[in-house]
Amino acid sequence: MTERSIHHSTIVIERTYDASPSRVFAAWSTREALLRWGNPGDGWDLAYDHFDFRVGGGDINRFGPRGGPTFRNETTYFDIVPDVRIVSASSMTSERKHIFASLITAEFILAGKGCRLIVTEQGAFLDGHDKRANHEAGWSEMLDKLRIELLRTQVAA
Amino acid sequence: MTERSIHHSTIVIERTYDASPSRVFAAWSTREALLRWGNPGDGWDLAYDHFDFRVGGGDINRFGPRGGPTFRNETTYFDIVPDVRIVSASSMTSERKHIFASLITAEFILAGKGCRLIVTEQGAFLDGHDKRANHEAGWSEMLDKLRIELLRTQVAA
Repeated sequence: MTERSIHHSTIVIERTYDASPSRVFAAWSTREALLRWGNPGDGWDLAYDHFDFRVGGGDINRFGPRGGPTFRNETTYFDIVPDVRIVSASSMTSERKHIFASLITAEFILAGKGCRLIVTEQGAFLDGHDKRANHEAGWSEMLDKLRIELLRTQVAA
Repeated sequence: MTERSIHHSTIVIERTYDASPSRVFAAWSTREALLRWGNPGDGWDLAYDHFDFRVGGGDINRFGPRGGPTFRNETTYFDIVPDVRIVSASSMTSERKHIFASLITAEFILAGKGCRLIVTEQGAFLDGHDKRANHEAGWSEMLDKLRIELLRTQVAA
């Protein structure tokens, strides 16, 4: 029998990018961009089974280390203000176990000519299957890759 | 133009009831019971447009003071462990404005012959349309009415 527990924890992570809020928002709102930067593990696989970026819509993705455990994340979009913010809720499972649920807000704030991004993940870790340190590392990895994505799209523009 | 802001806040509210975790869980999982106790305002109206209590399902309700503003709440159920816990996310609108979003966990813990209920609401208040004190008062009102609901169903049993 599974030992049931819930551990609540809020992660706030910030980055400032040399790109407009509009460009940073765009990287959060298209499947193609997210496939390039939205993977919490270095060298992990990431695929979308469903992608519907609109209020009331949502997406489903799967990710994880090759040959290792697969995580499935299902997101519902609650509020989207273009170039300003995204509010969503997510539920994560692994091997059919619910391991994590969260409310995530991303705020895109004009800072000089760039963008200050504030990500707040208000999470509930379930039954000890996942932990805060994994998520801090995952967000850090993703937001570093987002910097590279923004450089890439700047060169392409 | 709306001044955009997000204020994050976590509310934890506890009650101990003279009823089994199973009976308290039941009051959270049926529309009929929720209509009796799940209204955050004293004397307010409450109606469900949709009710589907299962993982991946959700419900939609409307509530508010008679003749006053109407609030619309849309909930998605992420994890349900019968008699043990409910994990859900909710989005609230009023007059088509998004005013609040949250992750809510309810934990039903055996305490003697009774139940200790812990409700944790990890919320994001949007654009100053709503505030923490309203939610603290709302949960307090609901969980007091839940005590009456549990007495009622005890007498009926």
